[in-house]
Formats: sequence, C-alpha cells, structure tokens
Amino acid sequence: MPGEFDFINWLRSQIRPSSFVPVPQGDDLAVLKWQAADLLLVGVDQVLDGVHFDTTIHSPRSIGRKAMNRNLSDCAAMACLPAAAVTTAALPRGIGLDYAKELYLGLRDAADPFDCVIVGGDTASWDGKLVLTVTILGRSAGVQPITRSGAKVGDGIYVTGPLGGSILGRHMTFEPRITLSRQLAATGRVSAMIDLSDGLSRDLPHICEGSRVGAVIEAEQIPIHPDAVTLSRDGRSPLDHALNDGEDYELLVTGTLDGLGLPVTRVGSVVGGNEVSLRAGGSVEPLDARGWEHLL
Amino acid sequence: MPGEFDFINWLRSQIRPSSFVPVPQGDDLAVLKWQAADLLLVGVDQVLDGVHFDTTIHSPRSIGRKAMNRNLSDCAAMACLPAAAVTTAALPRGIGLDYAKELYLGLRDAADPFDCVIVGGDTASWDGKLVLTVTILGRSAGVQPITRSGAKVGDGIYVTGPLGGSILGRHMTFEPRITLSRQLAATGRVSAMIDLSDGLSRDLPHICEGSRVGAVIEAEQIPIHPDAVTLSRDGRSPLDHALNDGEDYELLVTGTLDGLGLPVTRVGSVVGGNEVSLRAGGSVEPLDARGWEHLL
Repeated sequence: MPGEFDFINWLRSQIRPSSFVPVPQGDDLAVLKWQAADLLLVGVDQVLDGVHFDTTIHSPRSIGRKAMNRNLSDCAAMACLPAAAVTTAALPRGIGLDYAKELYLGLRDAADPFDCVIVGGDTASWDGKLVLTVTILGRSAGVQPITRSGAKVGDGIYVTGPLGGSILGRHMTFEPRITLSRQLAATGRVSAMIDLSDGLSRDLPHICEGSRVGAVIEAEQIPIHPDAVTLSRDGRSPLDHALNDGEDYELLVTGTLDGLGLPVTRVGSVVGGNEVSLRAGGSVEPLDARGWEHLL
Repeated sequence: MPGEFDFINWLRSQIRPSSFVPVPQGDDLAVLKWQAADLLLVGVDQVLDGVHFDTTIHSPRSIGRKAMNRNLSDCAAMACLPAAAVTTAALPRGIGLDYAKELYLGLRDAADPFDCVIVGGDTASWDGKLVLTVTILGRSAGVQPITRSGAKVGDGIYVTGPLGGSILGRHMTFEPRITLSRQLAATGRVSAMIDLSDGLSRDLPHICEGSRVGAVIEAEQIPIHPDAVTLSRDGRSPLDHALNDGEDYELLVTGTLDGLGLPVTRVGSVVGGNEVSLRAGGSVEPLDARGWEHLL
C-alpha cells in the first residue's frame, strides 16, 4: 500500500519555480520572501464530503478545483492577487495514491492560471470522510484591498452575473472573478465587495453591517440564472432561488459603477438605516437572510 | 439551534489587537502588513478525530491546544517566531456552541504566549468527525530559518528532550520548543533541524536526504522517557519506543553544540554516505524508518 511519503515524493516532482520562494520546498514550513510594498492577505476555507461536494458523484479533480477556487473567490472579493497556497487533505483510508494525485492536480488546475503556487501542505489518512482545506496568501499588488465596510448611502449595488440554482452544477465549476474584481477596483469607484458564497440574502447583510448602512434590492433587476428557473419546479420561485441559494461565487459590489460599461448588473441601492429590503411589484418588504448557515 | 454566525459573532468579541493587522478582521480575508525585513514562513497541519486525538477521551480545549501546538512546533523546527494563524473547524453536527468555543480557547491558550494572533478561519458543521486545521505564518525576526538541508559530515546530532511513549498523554500536552530553538539558532552552530513528529527513525532520514549525508545514532545515548519504559510492557523495548514512537515534538538538531552548556543531548554523529545506522552494544545496524506514516 502506498504511503504519504510516496505522495510527498510525487508532489515534489510537481513543484513549480516561483520568485516568492527563496528556500526550496520540503521543509517543516515553506519560506517566502514577501515584497514590502504588498499587503499580505490571508484566509482559509474547507470543503467537506457531503456538504460542499459528494465523492460518489464528483471526480477528485473537480473537488480539488472547487477547493482552490473557493479561496480564489475570496481573493476576488478583496481585489487581491493570489500568490501562494498551502493545503491539507484528510483522505479516507485506502483511497489510493491516484485519487490523491487527482485532488492535487485539481488544485493546480485552478491555481496555475493565476500564478498561485502551492508551497506546502499536510496529508493524512483516516477512518473518516474526505476533507480538503486551502489557505490562500494574496498580495495587494498595487490595489488597496476592498473590504465589506466601505459602502455609502447612495451607492449602487451590483452583481457580476446571474444568480441561483448553482447546486445543479455550477457550484463545482464556477470561475473566480479575480480579473474582473481587479478591473472593478482599479476604477476607484468600488466601496465594498464580497463574494456570494452563502446567497445574496445572507451575504448582503455582511456589507450592510460592516458599513452601517441599509439596502434596497429591486426584485425585477436581479439577473436570474436559467438553473434557478429549472430548479423552480420544486415550488420555490426562480427569484427565491436567486436570492437565497448559496455558492454563486459572483461578486456583490457597492459603489458608483453606473454608465462605465463594466460587466455588472445593478440590483439595488445603499440606503440609510440598517434594514435590508426587497422591492417587488411596488411593495417593499424586509429581505430575510435565508441563505446557507452551518448549524452547530 | 445556534449557527455559525453566532459563533463568528462570539469570535469577534475575542479578537486581540495586533500590530500586524491594519484592517479590522471579519472580511473575506485578513489583511496583514508584513515587515520587509522578515522572511515569511508558512505551513499547515491538521488534526483528525481518531488519529491525532479522540473526542471520547480528550477535552475540546486540549484538542485546540494540540492543533495549534503542532504548528508552533513547526515554527520551532525552522527557528522562526509565530506571528499569525488561520484555522478551520469541521464540527460534527449538533456538537454545540460551547464545544466550538472551547476548541477556539484551546487554540488561543497555545498561541497567546507567543503573541501569535488568530486572524481568520472557517467553521462548518457536517455529518462527519471533528477536523481542525491550523495554518501558521512565521517570521524570521532576525534569525535565518534553519532547514533540513544543512547538516555536514562531522556534525553532532542532538535532541532536546527524552523520547518515546508520548501516546500515554504527552502527545496532547507537549510544549513547542520555540524559545529553545531560537536560542540554539542564535549560536550560529545549528546546521539542520526538524521537530520529531513521526519518530526519530522516520524524521532523521528527512535531514539525511535533505543534506545528502548519513548518520550514526548511539543507542546508549538516547534519552528515554519514563513513558517509553511504562509502555515497554507491550513487549517492545523502551529503546524501540524512543526510536520509533511519534509525536515527541522535541527538536532533532545537527551542528556543533558540544560543550556550550545548552539543554540538548548528543545522540549521534553525521557521517558520509546516505545510510542511517544505529550503534548498540558494539554492533552497527541500519536504523529502519518505523515511525508513523499515513497509508493511502
């Protein structure tokens, strides 16, 4: 039976050179030379079998891609560039070396286009289900990070793509909006940003709380994904899916972006107070947070 | 039932100020200002229920402490100072808010003495067993990182404490050797270092391979922990336990440290070639790697 060190030896053969890594990899910690001009952004995200993917349905390559892309989407939310990553894999015992390699290649599929290097990690086998984590190190690279706390009354609220129904497949195959995020931030007209991982109705309040503002969303302006229409056979309307489904991984942006020809759709406005509302058919109702929350 | 956002709100109340963190926490990524003079060291480690701890025996506080201390031990291995950490917790569904808080407080118990701040993380609940990960960011802070690849023929081989039998309890309660590691590295006489997580017989070859050297270990000089003697009732000798048990979390050091009065014990010498040998009772035999390896 192959062991973790067979995997580690294979991983070493996959290492890419990087200007960030003065000390060769394979030590207790990776050593990076961080550029003084760059702010260092760091975050971590996990994907769990049965929650974020299903090993009986999804290929290890697609699982690896998703694990990395969730973190790259966090970079997009902050308008930084991914620089390096470290990862863990808790592998069901006996899953095999090829499966582990495919997970890693999926991580690389997602990271390589952004020149994000995987500089370290930890592999273990256990009598449990598959868990992958990715920790991402991002660099500001000349753009001030965009937080959740800069939205101002009068700003527009925008999304970068159609929402809803990602469970039909897009939650595994989305592309992180890093390039667009940098383009938006470079205008200097973005006041706050977040990626839509838990659903618009749950993620928008994070901006409102962080910025101490309210928001009104216009139901008619929300771009609804065809997947949300397909899913509406379950009795929930396409709009309900667009507002409340998680894992769209589009960006939710506030600022003054009207008329700039950017590929965003205005869906509402930042207002005073602290309420998040939905205007539909002439009436305005509170928009309750119905998106994804893990219960403890 | 409490949710992840109840936990996140509680976590926010626990945040410590830090000179590293110019942007307040609670965003998609934490924003750090890295000092230009500091190399950035990064690594990640996971602890899994049934492998690294047992939720039916160990308290959540002790599990949190171990998760952080394993990473702090990696900092010791590199002679860097821990600066910041991000963590994930995959929580068995229904485990409760108090349990999650205790895990976090255990992480903090370990990190606080080293002024290591937890700047972000990800919490999820699932139909699986407890998984914690810690990603550590270390800074060189005026000491060149010690790798596995600097050992030279003629160097002594040293350990920082008695070995073996950690499964009796020390694997949960060890203290990372950061202060001693910095003291050793500051002598300028340490050529390579690693922490003993998988057992001396498995970890020493990492130094030998990294440094392209061999090693001879003197059986009579190995400091054997009383726990290894207690465990030897299983029929394996105390020496066997000292050589092959994992999770000692002492440092294995090469260099020229004889006669400096440092709290290390010489256990052997670096030699030419690429073999790792054990001298016992006048005969020299290959020292096979019998320590811990995850099988895939």
